[in-house]
Amino acid sequence: MNSSTFTYPSRVTIREVGMRDGLQSIATIVSTEHKCEWLRDAVTAGQTEIEVGSFVPPKLLPQMADTTQVLAYAKSLPGLQASVLVPNLRGAELALDGEADLMLLPLSASHAHSLANLRKTPDEVVAELGRIRAARDASGKKTLIEGGVGTAFGCTIQGHVEEAEVLRLMQALLDAGADRVSLADTVGYADPASVSRLFEKALKIAGDRFCCGHFHDTRGLALVNVHAALLLGVSRFDTSLAGIGGCPHAPGASGNASTEDLSFMLAAMGIDTGLDVDALLALRAKVAGWIEGEPTHGALWRAGLPKTFASSLRV
Amino acid sequence: MNSSTFTYPSRVTIREVGMRDGLQSIATIVSTEHKCEWLRDAVTAGQTEIEVGSFVPPKLLPQMADTTQVLAYAKSLPGLQASVLVPNLRGAELALDGEADLMLLPLSASHAHSLANLRKTPDEVVAELGRIRAARDASGKKTLIEGGVGTAFGCTIQGHVEEAEVLRLMQALLDAGADRVSLADTVGYADPASVSRLFEKALKIAGDRFCCGHFHDTRGLALVNVHAALLLGVSRFDTSLAGIGGCPHAPGASGNASTEDLSFMLAAMGIDTGLDVDALLALRAKVAGWIEGEPTHGALWRAGLPKTFASSLRV
Repeated sequence: MNSSTFTYPSRVTIREVGMRDGLQSIATIVSTEHKCEWLRDAVTAGQTEIEVGSFVPPKLLPQMADTTQVLAYAKSLPGLQASVLVPNLRGAELALDGEADLMLLPLSASHAHSLANLRKTPDEVVAELGRIRAARDASGKKTLIEGGVGTAFGCTIQGHVEEAEVLRLMQALLDAGADRVSLADTVGYADPASVSRLFEKALKIAGDRFCCGHFHDTRGLALVNVHAALLLGVSRFDTSLAGIGGCPHAPGASGNASTEDLSFMLAAMGIDTGLDVDALLALRAKVAGWIEGEPTHGALWRAGLPKTFASSLRV
Repeated sequence: MNSSTFTYPSRVTIREVGMRDGLQSIATIVSTEHKCEWLRDAVTAGQTEIEVGSFVPPKLLPQMADTTQVLAYAKSLPGLQASVLVPNLRGAELALDGEADLMLLPLSASHAHSLANLRKTPDEVVAELGRIRAARDASGKKTLIEGGVGTAFGCTIQGHVEEAEVLRLMQALLDAGADRVSLADTVGYADPASVSRLFEKALKIAGDRFCCGHFHDTRGLALVNVHAALLLGVSRFDTSLAGIGGCPHAPGASGNASTEDLSFMLAAMGIDTGLDVDALLALRAKVAGWIEGEPTHGALWRAGLPKTFASSLRV
């Protein structure tokens, strides 16, 4: 028998990515008005960090065509840190113009996935991050730069991805000027043991600049993978309302960790998230209505909160 | 940052409860022939412990009316430990007659749930276990007696269940003659922190006689709760093929941890279960066909095994 001297962070930030990772992967285009309503309700529910869109060409992802407007609205909401995904320098320039609080440049540690998804090798993405850093510094803007290492646990195209390669690329992103780095299990290949192994090494490399874990629930392990990272002290996770999300170049990769399920789990554990689970469930119902017919995920919305879930835990 | 000095058991036993906890909670009655086919395929897939039925009055649970025949067939399969649920001494006598390897007497730590489900107070169940122990000893049979403490994390009728009461009843079951005890989150109210707290205390009380964790996936936390118990060294878990299951007196309690998802998770973590995940997925498909129209759960069957899941891990 081991001893249960496990320590969890006392506070965890749940970063909403449903508006980007979720909406980009479904056919339904949610209107700018509904996106703004989503932002408003999310802030009311206590969300403080939201990825509001992606500066990719509208021809590729028409769902994200209104990112400039949505970002502008997000910037008007007090207390909200609005982030955007940028695939390259051109996207980063738009993020800087819109004064995003943070821009995330995704890198695929899988070379095959990187070429299919971004049409660049991972090292070309590192070089692009260097250019983005130079542009940010020249602009005088405060937008933070996050380098997100995806397919960190394997990839549906290439299969195995070397841990050493993931860590080399993370170090390279830091060296090229990333303010922060994060790890993503883009296709749902991670398990708690591999999360423990890789995240511990990543924390040794990046220290406080390691900012976030992003887990897809493809094989039902998103929350248990969060748990493994929590035990290492990781205190920020990407999640998606109603668990929407996926990856166009990763068949079967549908489903992020669900915002409402993770916020329930953490609250039940006594970990402060600042989130109102009831309000998140209400927003989930609203969003599910806007994307009717699209697959949604998560368990809490079906079962409801336990009778024992104290109202004191709800905010 | 904490250190990832987490230790997992090197070997874990997954005890199949789908034939009992699963089938008793759905309307479809699976034929004796199909139950025997299920047992055969499960043993071929590497399962060594299966709860094959329940000795309750057939009027109450017609799905379990053939438990005597199913148990007899299970006893003919080499290497299989066949267990049955017994609600009382009468059921235990049938289990002894059939030479079950183990009989599980469920106790609800929630008084309200106990009265609704078993029509007895928890302490009356403890007394019944004493009578069952006497009958077992008098019979000369080797059938082990497990006292299973359910609603250990709360209950949909009563709400909160005191940890101290759960532990008192577990001790009482041991004192009354249980060979083993286990804990069940009957209604899906547990979270990893409450699992750590309660299981650590239970292990201190019962030591090696603490044998199993049983988690329902009502709110999506079954696997993360298993993970919390694994970290304490618990090495046996109840699961249900296709995640079927529930509790007639616990609305919304549908769904055990899914056998195939947990076996995948453990194999991916490098923990030996002796199970062939591909064979379990094939059996899942077969069982889902027999109970067509009934709700099934789990994620792996939909997404398939990762490309990186080595064939060496598959057996």
